[in-house]
Amino acid sequence: MFALKLATRAKSLAKRLPNATCIKLIHTQNVLYKNKSDDILNVDIRGESLQFPNVWLRENCQCEQCYHTSAKSRILDWSNFDINVKPKDVSKDQNSLQITWNDGHRSEFNLNWLKLRGFTPENQKNYTETIYKPKKITWHSEDFVKIFSKHDYNEILNSDEALYNWLHKLSVYGAALIQNTPDSETAIDAVINKIGFPKQTHYGVKFVVRSVPNTSNVAYLSSNLQLHTDLPYYEYCPGANLLHCLVQTATPGGENLLSDCHYVADYMKENHPEQYKLLTDTEIEWRDVGIEDGNEFFKLHREPVICLDRHGDITRINFSIPQRGSQFPGPIELVKPWYEAHGLFLSLNHKFAAKFKTKAGEILSFNNIRLLHGRNAYEDSENNVRQLIGAYVDWDEIYSRLRCLKVKLQNEDGIY
Amino acid sequence: MFALKLATRAKSLAKRLPNATCIKLIHTQNVLYKNKSDDILNVDIRGESLQFPNVWLRENCQCEQCYHTSAKSRILDWSNFDINVKPKDVSKDQNSLQITWNDGHRSEFNLNWLKLRGFTPENQKNYTETIYKPKKITWHSEDFVKIFSKHDYNEILNSDEALYNWLHKLSVYGAALIQNTPDSETAIDAVINKIGFPKQTHYGVKFVVRSVPNTSNVAYLSSNLQLHTDLPYYEYCPGANLLHCLVQTATPGGENLLSDCHYVADYMKENHPEQYKLLTDTEIEWRDVGIEDGNEFFKLHREPVICLDRHGDITRINFSIPQRGSQFPGPIELVKPWYEAHGLFLSLNHKFAAKFKTKAGEILSFNNIRLLHGRNAYEDSENNVRQLIGAYVDWDEIYSRLRCLKVKLQNEDGIY
Repeated sequence: MFALKLATRAKSLAKRLPNATCIKLIHTQNVLYKNKSDDILNVDIRGESLQFPNVWLRENCQCEQCYHTSAKSRILDWSNFDINVKPKDVSKDQNSLQITWNDGHRSEFNLNWLKLRGFTPENQKNYTETIYKPKKITWHSEDFVKIFSKHDYNEILNSDEALYNWLHKLSVYGAALIQNTPDSETAIDAVINKIGFPKQTHYGVKFVVRSVPNTSNVAYLSSNLQLHTDLPYYEYCPGANLLHCLVQTATPGGENLLSDCHYVADYMKENHPEQYKLLTDTEIEWRDVGIEDGNEFFKLHREPVICLDRHGDITRINFSIPQRGSQFPGPIELVKPWYEAHGLFLSLNHKFAAKFKTKAGEILSFNNIRLLHGRNAYEDSENNVRQLIGAYVDWDEIYSRLRCLKVKLQNEDGIY
Repeated sequence: MFALKLATRAKSLAKRLPNATCIKLIHTQNVLYKNKSDDILNVDIRGESLQFPNVWLRENCQCEQCYHTSAKSRILDWSNFDINVKPKDVSKDQNSLQITWNDGHRSEFNLNWLKLRGFTPENQKNYTETIYKPKKITWHSEDFVKIFSKHDYNEILNSDEALYNWLHKLSVYGAALIQNTPDSETAIDAVINKIGFPKQTHYGVKFVVRSVPNTSNVAYLSSNLQLHTDLPYYEYCPGANLLHCLVQTATPGGENLLSDCHYVADYMKENHPEQYKLLTDTEIEWRDVGIEDGNEFFKLHREPVICLDRHGDITRINFSIPQRGSQFPGPIELVKPWYEAHGLFLSLNHKFAAKFKTKAGEILSFNNIRLLHGRNAYEDSENNVRQLIGAYVDWDEIYSRLRCLKVKLQNEDGIY
C-alpha cells in the first residue's frame, strides 16, 4: 500500500513538472527511462535491473481491452496501434508495475511475469530451458544403460508426475522404455491419449510391424533393417515413435539398435568438419511410393541429413537408405563427397549405437527426428511370429503436455 | 539388337585391353568415362550429353538384389557398399544403359529414367517443377479475379482430372473455391478423403467456426478477425485450410480477406530490404494456451514471420497478432525495429489483399502457410447464425495426391 501511495504522489507531481524531473521522480521508485533512448524502460525486479521496450510493454498490456483472459490472447487492434507510444507515468509496488501511457491507456504488469520475459541472455536461457523445451543431453552406446529410463504403464496412466517424468526423459535423452503394458493391440492408445492424439500418416493411425510378403515398405521384411529414421519423406515428419512389443522373436535376431545422432553430429563437427558440412548443407530427396489400404501415395521431401536452425542447433535428422530417392537435387560435383560423408555418418552411428532387445509388454519410445533406429534380421517360426504395434506422436503435442504438467505440478506464477 | 551385339563385342574386347583402350571403345557407343576423373560416366541420351557419377549409378541399381520392386525402395546393403566402384563394361541400346561393375555386378537403366535424373540445372529444374512441386505464381488484389478458380464439388469427387485441377490451382496460387457443396456438416469429409486424411490439431479433426462466448480461441468471436495464419504455434503447422460455409451472415460484415504473402515478401525484399531482413531473421514465439474438449494445451513454437530455405525461397509464413507470445526470444535492440517491420508487413498485406464473401455451399480452400486470411466483423441474428465447418490437410498429402494423379493421367515413363 505504501508503494502505491508513493506512486500516486509521484504521478500527481509529474503532471506539473517538466520531463527531466519526471524521470528523476520515477527513478526514486527504481523505474526510469534509459537516457540514451526514450524507447526503453528500466525496472528493478527483486534486485535485478531489467530493461523493457515501451512498444513491447504497450503491446503486451494485460488489461481486458488488450488481452482476452479466457482465450489467453492479445486482442489489441493493430490498425490503431502506435509503435512510438511512451509512458507518461510509471510506478511500482511489491508485485506489479503500473504504467499510464501518453494515449491515456493504463497497464499493469505482474513483476514475476515481467522477470520471466526479461531480455537478458540469462533470463531468456532460463525461460527457454524451463518453459520452451528442456535441454537435450547427448549420449553414446556406453552411456545408454544410465540414460535409458524405465517407466511403468499403469503409473503413467494414473499419475501426472509419472507421465511428466516419462515425457521429460524422452525429450532430454530421446529414448525411454515403458514396462508392464497389457498384452493388447489397443494398449498403446491409452498412453497416447494421455499426451493428446496420434499422428496419422499414409500408413494409418497405428501400424503393425510383422513380416509381410509383397510389402509396400521395407520395414515389413524380416531381413536386417538398416539404421534409419522413419518417414523422412514427410515434410511434417513424425516426431516420436512408440513401438509396443506384443511378441518378440525367440531366435537370437530381432535386437534393436539406437543411436543418438546429436552425439554423432557433434563428433563429426569436431573430427570431420568437411563431412559434417556436406551432411548439413546438401539437400537430399527422400521418397516413398506405394499403396496402403487402397490409398496411393507418392511422397517426396527435400532436406539434408542433418538439419540445422539459424543458431546451428540440430532440428531434425533424416536418414534412410531405402527411402532416399534416386533424384539427387544438387550439383554433380557434390555426389561422391556426399556419399563419403554418408558412409562415415552411418559407420559412426554403428560405432556409437546401443543394442538391446525389447521384451513382450514393453513400449520403446524414442525421438524419431533425433535417433537412428534399426533391427537385426530374425526368423519367425509357426508359434513365434514377431509382432509390434507402432504409433507416432508429434513433438508439438509432447512439449505441450510437458508444459501443462509443469504448470500443474509446480504452480509457478507468471508463466501465462 | 544391333547395339546389344556391339556392346557384347566391346565387352569381350575390353577384357583383353588396357584401361585407356577400353574408354575409347566405349566412346564409340556414346558412353565414356570423363577424363579428368574416373568417377563420372558420360551418356548420350536422345542427343543430349549427360553425366552420371559411378557411385550414384551403382547405388541406384534397379536390379532385384538392389531394389525391391513392390516396395519401390533401395535394398542394397551399405555394410558391403564400395563408393569407389567402377564400371568395367558399359553399353547402350535404344532404351537402356547396361553396366557391368568391377565387382562383377550388372546394372541396367532405362534411358528415360536416367534423363529425368540428369544432373544439369535444366533437367533438375524440369524434375523439380513437374514432379516435386508445381511452381508458385504470386498475385495481389487486382489479379485475384483471374487467379481465383472455381471448382465443382461433385466433379472433384468423381473425376481424377477435376481433382487434379483443383489441387494444382491450390498449389500454384494458394487459393481456390469449391462450389455446389451439399448443406451438411460432413460434406467436407468426402473432399478430404479424395486427398487422403485430415490433419488433427488440439482443436480436433474438424472445427466449427461460430461466435462462442468465453472462447478459448479468438477465431470464435464475432468481432473483426485481423489478418493471420492459423496455428503458427505448431511446429507442424496445418498446410491448407478448407472452410465450408454452411450459413453466411446476411449483414454487410463477415467478408473474407486473403493476401498472398509471397507477393508481399517479394515486394518488401525489393522496396524495404531492411524490414524484410528483420522479418526473415528474427525468431518470434508463437503461442496458444487453453483447453478444448477437456484437453489442456500449451503450445509454443519459435520461427520468424517469413521463413526462408537455404535457397532464399519462402517455406512458411507465420503471422497472428493474438497468437504471438509475449516472450520475445531475441536481443532488446531488435524489438522496436522488428515492430516497425511487423507494422509495415501488416499494412502491405492489407494493401494487396483481395476481399470477397463466400456463399453458403462454397468451400474456400487456401494455403495456410502462404496466405494471410482475415474476416470483417459481423452480427448474428436469431435466424441467421454464421457457421463454417473447417478442416486442415497437410501439403505432404496434397502434393502426394497431385503426383499420383499426374502419373495416372499422363502415364509418363521413368518417374519411379
